[in-house]
Amino acid sequence: MANSWQAIAARKQQERTSRIPREWLLKEPPFTYAPNAINIPRRCGLLTEHELSITENHDATSLLVELSKGTLTSEQVVTAFSKRAAIAQQVCNCLTEIFFEDAIARAKELDAYLKKNGRPIGPLHGLPISLKDGFKVRSYDASVGVAGLCFEPAATNSALVDLLLSLGAVLYCKTNIPLTMMALDSHNNVFGRTLNPAHHELTAGGSSGGEGALVAMRGSILGVGTDVGGSIRIPAACNNLYGVKPSHGRIPFAGQEGGQKPGSTKLGIEATAGPIATTTRDCAMFMRVIANGGPELFDPEVVAQGWDQLALLNTKQKPLRVGIARGDGHVKPLPPIAKLMDDVAQTLRAAPGQAIEVMDVDVSPILSRCLKTFNGIMSIDGANAWFDHMEVTGEPLSPWLQGRLTRRPQKSLDEVRGLQAARTELQTTFLNVWKESGGYWLTDASEAHIGDRTLDALICPVAPHPIPPIDRWNTANYTAAFNLLDLSTGVVPVRAFDSQDLQGDIPSDKPLNGWDKINRELWTKVDKNVYLGSPLSVQVVTPRLTERRLVEAMGVIDAALQPLRTSGRRESRL
Amino acid sequence: MANSWQAIAARKQQERTSRIPREWLLKEPPFTYAPNAINIPRRCGLLTEHELSITENHDATSLLVELSKGTLTSEQVVTAFSKRAAIAQQVCNCLTEIFFEDAIARAKELDAYLKKNGRPIGPLHGLPISLKDGFKVRSYDASVGVAGLCFEPAATNSALVDLLLSLGAVLYCKTNIPLTMMALDSHNNVFGRTLNPAHHELTAGGSSGGEGALVAMRGSILGVGTDVGGSIRIPAACNNLYGVKPSHGRIPFAGQEGGQKPGSTKLGIEATAGPIATTTRDCAMFMRVIANGGPELFDPEVVAQGWDQLALLNTKQKPLRVGIARGDGHVKPLPPIAKLMDDVAQTLRAAPGQAIEVMDVDVSPILSRCLKTFNGIMSIDGANAWFDHMEVTGEPLSPWLQGRLTRRPQKSLDEVRGLQAARTELQTTFLNVWKESGGYWLTDASEAHIGDRTLDALICPVAPHPIPPIDRWNTANYTAAFNLLDLSTGVVPVRAFDSQDLQGDIPSDKPLNGWDKINRELWTKVDKNVYLGSPLSVQVVTPRLTERRLVEAMGVIDAALQPLRTSGRRESRL
Repeated sequence: MANSWQAIAARKQQERTSRIPREWLLKEPPFTYAPNAINIPRRCGLLTEHELSITENHDATSLLVELSKGTLTSEQVVTAFSKRAAIAQQVCNCLTEIFFEDAIARAKELDAYLKKNGRPIGPLHGLPISLKDGFKVRSYDASVGVAGLCFEPAATNSALVDLLLSLGAVLYCKTNIPLTMMALDSHNNVFGRTLNPAHHELTAGGSSGGEGALVAMRGSILGVGTDVGGSIRIPAACNNLYGVKPSHGRIPFAGQEGGQKPGSTKLGIEATAGPIATTTRDCAMFMRVIANGGPELFDPEVVAQGWDQLALLNTKQKPLRVGIARGDGHVKPLPPIAKLMDDVAQTLRAAPGQAIEVMDVDVSPILSRCLKTFNGIMSIDGANAWFDHMEVTGEPLSPWLQGRLTRRPQKSLDEVRGLQAARTELQTTFLNVWKESGGYWLTDASEAHIGDRTLDALICPVAPHPIPPIDRWNTANYTAAFNLLDLSTGVVPVRAFDSQDLQGDIPSDKPLNGWDKINRELWTKVDKNVYLGSPLSVQVVTPRLTERRLVEAMGVIDAALQPLRTSGRRESRL
Repeated sequence: MANSWQAIAARKQQERTSRIPREWLLKEPPFTYAPNAINIPRRCGLLTEHELSITENHDATSLLVELSKGTLTSEQVVTAFSKRAAIAQQVCNCLTEIFFEDAIARAKELDAYLKKNGRPIGPLHGLPISLKDGFKVRSYDASVGVAGLCFEPAATNSALVDLLLSLGAVLYCKTNIPLTMMALDSHNNVFGRTLNPAHHELTAGGSSGGEGALVAMRGSILGVGTDVGGSIRIPAACNNLYGVKPSHGRIPFAGQEGGQKPGSTKLGIEATAGPIATTTRDCAMFMRVIANGGPELFDPEVVAQGWDQLALLNTKQKPLRVGIARGDGHVKPLPPIAKLMDDVAQTLRAAPGQAIEVMDVDVSPILSRCLKTFNGIMSIDGANAWFDHMEVTGEPLSPWLQGRLTRRPQKSLDEVRGLQAARTELQTTFLNVWKESGGYWLTDASEAHIGDRTLDALICPVAPHPIPPIDRWNTANYTAAFNLLDLSTGVVPVRAFDSQDLQGDIPSDKPLNGWDKINRELWTKVDKNVYLGSPLSVQVVTPRLTERRLVEAMGVIDAALQPLRTSGRRESRL
């Protein structure tokens, strides 16, 4: 039984616990302040006032200022976040690999470097950054929560790990994910389930769910997730955070443990790595620093294009022109999501100085066609690699995957070719969305300008439902379509779900399909009060490989949405 | 028999001839001035002095200046090149589709536009550009020389065709290719064989061989070819021209007729489109104008990156550092190629003002491994699509393909995955070539600098042999490796093969392999005098998606090699 999955999981969890110093263990069991445990780090007494200040009164950008000046040492910052990550782990089970000791040792070296040389070693000097479990960090596992891959320490670093280290970052922990990374709630048999620290009954999201929960707890100020169908954006949305899923080719992804056979990513949809953070400017900072760090020297699939070589929006000279896309045509948004989009459109239209032009856009004819191709490409392997991994130790599927994931024959080469052709056709068609003449804008003929106006960004829901209870995220098409299309996409939190959002009924017409039916049940067969206080977010989308435009647009939109957050009528639990 | 391949080919050739005005037909049969027919346009009397001046005393860049000022009308320029292209067709059989009438009509419209508006319609205003046959031009065939695809006019334009038209270019003809585009001499059963206009016995190259021959004849000043294994660079080298094969994602390639099933390009090696031209600055101009023309709006696979957003070399502040890579480790260069590389290294080292730093680099450990993966990926389909096309009309293979191309089973998904993994591994390994610490530089330890020096560009042969007789191009690995690696690559002509190049013997050791053995026979079993006067060229290689660096480096290298062209000892027939 020593090699049963249960035995491996027990040893792995024991190893994880052993890497938390005894003095950082909570005296009381977590969630005694349930359902909202987000303040346990402040209340538990383990963090000093200085450590609370480091972890609560900064974003990564402001921490880097202090670190480069030496007004905060890396040792102080890394220790504070390690401690807080240890607490977060005990609260919401968000970590997989812990290497606080290594991190503090490196922090001390960086402090010595700064002292000796009078300048930081790089633009991320001394900043602790957390990573999703799939990143390989030499001499630690990248088991991705599969027992069969445990206790096989990585021999090399992932490309992004090498790049982050070269820029001065300090790596101190990795974070939890769902088994197979194809679920949207982060449960696996090795590490267990990550909980949403602010909403015990709701999902923390996935597949970068540990990252989302950890950053929500401010056990990390900047986490790196990966996203092939929503895996950065969904946990960002579940945890009231900002996140960016870049297009393929912007951020190094090479050298990940994805559980797949080598070469699979070239046939499939390219997962991409990106930040989960507490501010838009941190997302922008991360993207900028990576782009300027010579990422193309670490991963041959990354485009050689420094941040200054990415196009700007130029919103100083003209308004930001955004398209509001309300649905994907496959699953209708529930009333609070429809209301959210109305609120967003109205608030952006009212932005001071007419800084934002808002167009209604209907992309549902394209998005509704994406799901089939996305699912087809995602199932090229027939999940054989995953079932092979699990069979080694007799490991079962996670609850949500049971009945959803089965071993099937691999697709044929002709099927794969057909799916790729379908993908290209959808990508080509979507180019028309950006321009007024393309046929997707809902403008009156009388409004149409001479010349062809173009959109700077699209805004759309993250999902057709609010953050749902555990294991009930319904459809990923709202996020996954933009992986299929390979567009630059981010998440911006808008406001908390409030009592007014409880209103609104499902129309009496027939559901569009099975997914739409299940989605309605998140409104009709759930005690809707569970949603109160949970975050409501939107996606911002820009064309492929335009990440600078994306983070700029996110910044403008984020600022313009401020009135929605501060209006008196909110009763947020966040 | 009406639908036999012979009948279709006859009708197709008749159609082609019918599109040449009677008054542009040569009085004498071509090659009466054999073996060098390059001057027939000047001697045949069909072109006016003004037309000779337009077609001989300009490159595209200088023509555009005249066109935008109106000192030359587009009608004059398009008529001159149409006439000269008609002559070239009669001399060396380089054209497939002819649309001179449409072109002259468009030229007149553009002239009227300039007159009315006082400014050109776009940066390519009025310039005639020729295209390889695979580009689709609405209402003309893109048969790629297969009888089964003839008389099926394209319903839409290729993405690049739309983009070129939007920039003001005039399209007037398409050019010949080999059957399947997988041969390196341009023969097919529909249009016949393209000859090398300057060297009757030598190959014109392929697969953009018609383009190479047409530009050599100055029947075009700027042609667009495509390249998946050398198909721009080889005909450029055969015809003493400059050519650029960009990385995938720089120039729109969507909407080509490639003879393959839809979606194939996503599984294979991405062919790319690029210029064949008479000067480096025309290559640079083409790349710049396309990059600045919003190519990402025409093809979703193109990177959104204007020309100003591509990195410069900055050679004003430091020398250009080039690596000389002499061989691919698979087929040894014949004596004149070894000598060429020595001449190039020596001449660059002697460049005025120490403007160029020359390193010896040995990339043969990587390049020698590329061939197998390249061939594997190229044969994923087992040539089934091509044999299907041919079977419709009972068409046979071209002579060179017989015995080389056979219908085979498609590769399995596992094989394809393995090939993609091998490709990624080679691309990743090649990243080390650019830096001194990577292990591929042949510098003395004593030379090694503190810090890690990097190469700006690599220079290597186009092939291990001179331009060979028809149908005898031996190995494409010298060019194809850079398609597998997806690097930015161009060809620069260096000098003519002269009597001193006749010297040098094959070493007495055993050939490395069958390819090496056949290569030696191009020296030992050929009357070497056939090579006299033929062009010797080099490839210039820069990292992936660094086309601005590439064309800059090509310019610096081209200028620095000038002494090799003007030294007294040459007896060029060019």
